[in-house]
Amino acid sequence: MKVYDFTKGEVIDIKKLLEDRAPTSYGDYETIVANIIKNVKDKGNSAILDYTTEFDKVTLTPTSMKVTSEEIREAYDLVDEKLITVIKKAKERVYAFHAKQKQYSWFDTEEDGSIMGQKITPLERVGVYVPGGKAVYTSSVIMDVVPALVAGVKEIVITTPPDSTGNINPQILVAADICGIENIYKMGGAQAIAALAFGTETIKKVDKIVGPGNIFVALAKKAVYGHVSIDSIAGPSEVLVIADETSNPKYIAADLLSQAEHDELASSVLITTSQAVAEKVKAEIERQTAYLKRKDIISASLNNYGVTIIVDSLKDAVTISNEIAPEHLEICTKNPFELMPYIKNAGAIFLGNYTPEPLGDYMAGPNHVLPTNATAKFFSPLSVDDFIKKSSITFFGRDALKALSDDVIYFAESEALDAHANSIKVRFEND
Amino acid sequence: MKVYDFTKGEVIDIKKLLEDRAPTSYGDYETIVANIIKNVKDKGNSAILDYTTEFDKVTLTPTSMKVTSEEIREAYDLVDEKLITVIKKAKERVYAFHAKQKQYSWFDTEEDGSIMGQKITPLERVGVYVPGGKAVYTSSVIMDVVPALVAGVKEIVITTPPDSTGNINPQILVAADICGIENIYKMGGAQAIAALAFGTETIKKVDKIVGPGNIFVALAKKAVYGHVSIDSIAGPSEVLVIADETSNPKYIAADLLSQAEHDELASSVLITTSQAVAEKVKAEIERQTAYLKRKDIISASLNNYGVTIIVDSLKDAVTISNEIAPEHLEICTKNPFELMPYIKNAGAIFLGNYTPEPLGDYMAGPNHVLPTNATAKFFSPLSVDDFIKKSSITFFGRDALKALSDDVIYFAESEALDAHANSIKVRFEND
Repeated sequence: MKVYDFTKGEVIDIKKLLEDRAPTSYGDYETIVANIIKNVKDKGNSAILDYTTEFDKVTLTPTSMKVTSEEIREAYDLVDEKLITVIKKAKERVYAFHAKQKQYSWFDTEEDGSIMGQKITPLERVGVYVPGGKAVYTSSVIMDVVPALVAGVKEIVITTPPDSTGNINPQILVAADICGIENIYKMGGAQAIAALAFGTETIKKVDKIVGPGNIFVALAKKAVYGHVSIDSIAGPSEVLVIADETSNPKYIAADLLSQAEHDELASSVLITTSQAVAEKVKAEIERQTAYLKRKDIISASLNNYGVTIIVDSLKDAVTISNEIAPEHLEICTKNPFELMPYIKNAGAIFLGNYTPEPLGDYMAGPNHVLPTNATAKFFSPLSVDDFIKKSSITFFGRDALKALSDDVIYFAESEALDAHANSIKVRFEND
Repeated sequence: MKVYDFTKGEVIDIKKLLEDRAPTSYGDYETIVANIIKNVKDKGNSAILDYTTEFDKVTLTPTSMKVTSEEIREAYDLVDEKLITVIKKAKERVYAFHAKQKQYSWFDTEEDGSIMGQKITPLERVGVYVPGGKAVYTSSVIMDVVPALVAGVKEIVITTPPDSTGNINPQILVAADICGIENIYKMGGAQAIAALAFGTETIKKVDKIVGPGNIFVALAKKAVYGHVSIDSIAGPSEVLVIADETSNPKYIAADLLSQAEHDELASSVLITTSQAVAEKVKAEIERQTAYLKRKDIISASLNNYGVTIIVDSLKDAVTISNEIAPEHLEICTKNPFELMPYIKNAGAIFLGNYTPEPLGDYMAGPNHVLPTNATAKFFSPLSVDDFIKKSSITFFGRDALKALSDDVIYFAESEALDAHANSIKVRFEND
C-alpha cells in the first residue's frame, strides 16, 4: 500500500489508477457473447443445454435444468442450523430496511377539476443471476431478491450455473428458499442472460435482470439492455476510508483488508489528515495480513490498487473522495456526521468506528449491490425503485382542457404539428 | 388502418408488428459511431469542429461553438410574443408537476442506537441533447431540462446541431433561456454525445445525457452508457386508444392522427368493444386526414402500423394493451377510472374524452419523454428521479455492532471471506 503525502507535494492521479481497472475493450469476448445470445434466441433450451455441457461440464435436460423441491429440502440438511438462522435474520433485516423505500402511487387534484399523478406498478417478472464458481454468493441472493419482493414482483426467477455434478451450492438454495423463490434454473453465463432476456420453451422472458457475474455475464447484460432492463454492471469493488488523528488504525486496517480480499482488482484507499495514523495503519495491515487466509489476493490487491493519501484537512479528504466516488465510504473521524453532508458521490456511507463495511455486506439492512468504478456519481444502490415502474396519469374535464386549448394549439403549430393542434380543435369546433 | 375483429376470430400479432419497427442490427452505423467517439476522445474540440464542418456544413471555432448571450437576446426578437408566453406557461406547469416528484433524504433510528437511511444528492452536471433538422423541439427542451432543475442539478448544458449558417432555431434558444440554461453548444450527432461523455478542452464531462436524437445519437448514447448515465433510448412513438360504445369517434380519430403525423414508423392502435365506433373512427380518419398538412406521413404511418382491433370486452382490451405496453394510452370509455387500476404497462395514461395526448405533449405537466417500444414494462417516464442519485447511510454504535457481530462473522466465514470476519473481530478482541 503506497503512501502519498499530498501535504509534501506528492501526487497520484488516483482516479485514473482506479479507472484503469475497467477494461476498455472486450474484443473477442463481445463476439462470443453475441453468438451465444443469437444461438439461445434461435434454438432455446437446446442451445442452453449445449452450453451447459460445454462450460459447466454437465449434461442436463429441460426438466433437470430446474431445481426440484426435493433438492431444496436436501439443501437444508447440508447447511448448518446456525447459518440458516443467520440467513433468515439477514433477510428480515434487509427486508425491514427496504420496506422503507417503498414508493406509492400518488395524484393531485387542481381547482379546474383536473387530476394528475403517478401510478406505481411492480415489474412482473425478474431474473436474478447468481454466480457459480468457487465463491459462494449467499448474501447476494438476499440483496438481489428482497428489494424485488418488497416492490411486489410476483415472479422472481434465479439462474445459477451448476457444478460438474449438476448441483447448486446448498447455501444458495437455502437462501433462495428463505426468500420464497420457487423457480431456480441451473444455467449460467451469457446463455442464462439470453434465456432470461428472450425466453425459451420453458423459461419466461423477464422484464429485468439483476445480479453480478463474470465478464460474459456482464457483456451479455449490456447486450440485452433495452430488450429488458438491467441493474448497473458491477465493476471491481472498492472502499475508501477517511480518517483523522482520532481514528483507530487497527479497525481501519481490518476494513481495508476486508475489501482487498475480494479480488486482485479490488481497491482500498485511506485518506487521512494524520501521518501517525497512516503509519500505524500500515503496520496493522502487515500484522493482520499475516494471519488472514486470502493473504495472496490481499497483497496483490494492495500492491496494485491500495493507496494511502495524507492531506492537510478533512475538507481535502472529502474533495478527493467525491472525485473518486467510491462504492463504499467509511468516515472514521471524530465527528463523522459533520462530514456526511459534504459527501456527494458514494454508494454506501458508513459512519463511525463501529460501522465496518462488512456489517453492510451482510446484516445491517441497506443493499450491498452498489455502484462501482466512479458510477456513484450517477447511479444508486440497488433498491425497491429498481423493481417498479411509473405511469403518469392525466385526467382533464372539458372546462379544464378548454382553458388550455389555445396554448396547446399554438405550441403544436409552432412545432409544425397540425394534427396535434387538430386533436384539440375537434373537441371545441362547435362551441 | 386495418381492422381485425377478434370477436370473429381474426388475429394479428400486434406486439410483433410493433416490435419489428425497432431495427435489430445497426451494422455500419455502430462502427461509424465508435470511430466518432474515439476521435472526440483523442482530439477533443478539433474533432468536433471537423465533424460540424462535415455534417452540419458550417465551420465554427471553439469560441463560436458556444451560443452567446447576444444570440439569445436576438432569438427573443425572432420568436413571437404569444409563443414566448406559452413556453413560459408550459414551463411553469411542467415545473409544478415535477416538483411533486421530489424525493428527500431520510433516515430511521432503531432502539439499539443505530441509524440507517438514504441520502439524496442531485447529479452535478447534465447534458441535454436537442435534435436539429426540420422539426423544432421546443417542448423537448422544457421536458428534458425541468426535471433536472427540480432535482437541483447545478450545471445543465444543452447541445444542438447548428444549421448551415451556424445558427440555432430561436425557439430552442428562447425555451432554453426560459429554463435558465446558460451553456448551449452548437454541436450535434455522435460527436456531441462523445463530448458530453468524455469532456473536451472547453466542454466539461457530464454525469448524465438525456434527450432524443437520430440513429447516430441513439447509438452513441448506448455506447457511452456506463461512463455516464443516459435516459432510455427513444424508439418510434405510439398511441393506443381503448374505446367503448360511448366514445367519440371524432376525438379518437383526431388523437390517432396526431400520433401518426410524427413519422412513418409511428403507430396508432385503437382497441374497441364497438363495431360501430370502429367504423365511425375509420370514416373520421379519412375525413380529417384530408385537411391535415402532414397527410403523406400520416397515411404511411397508418398503413404500416395503424391497427383497429375489435374485442368482446374491455377486459380483453386491457389485456392486449398490457401486452403492447404503449408509450401513450388513452382510455376513452364511459368510466375510464374503472379500467385504470388494471393497466400495468403504459408510459402515460390519459383518461376520458377531454384528455387528448397532445395536451400531455405540451401543457398538462407530466413529462412527454416516455418509454417506447414496449419498454413501459420496465422503464418509466423521465422524472426528477433521473437526476438524483442515492447513497445509503449506516451508523452503528459499539453495542449495536456487538449484538450483530456473531452473525456477521458467521455469515462472512460461510462465504470464505475471513478478512470480512476479521474486521468485526478486531473491534471486540479485548472484550
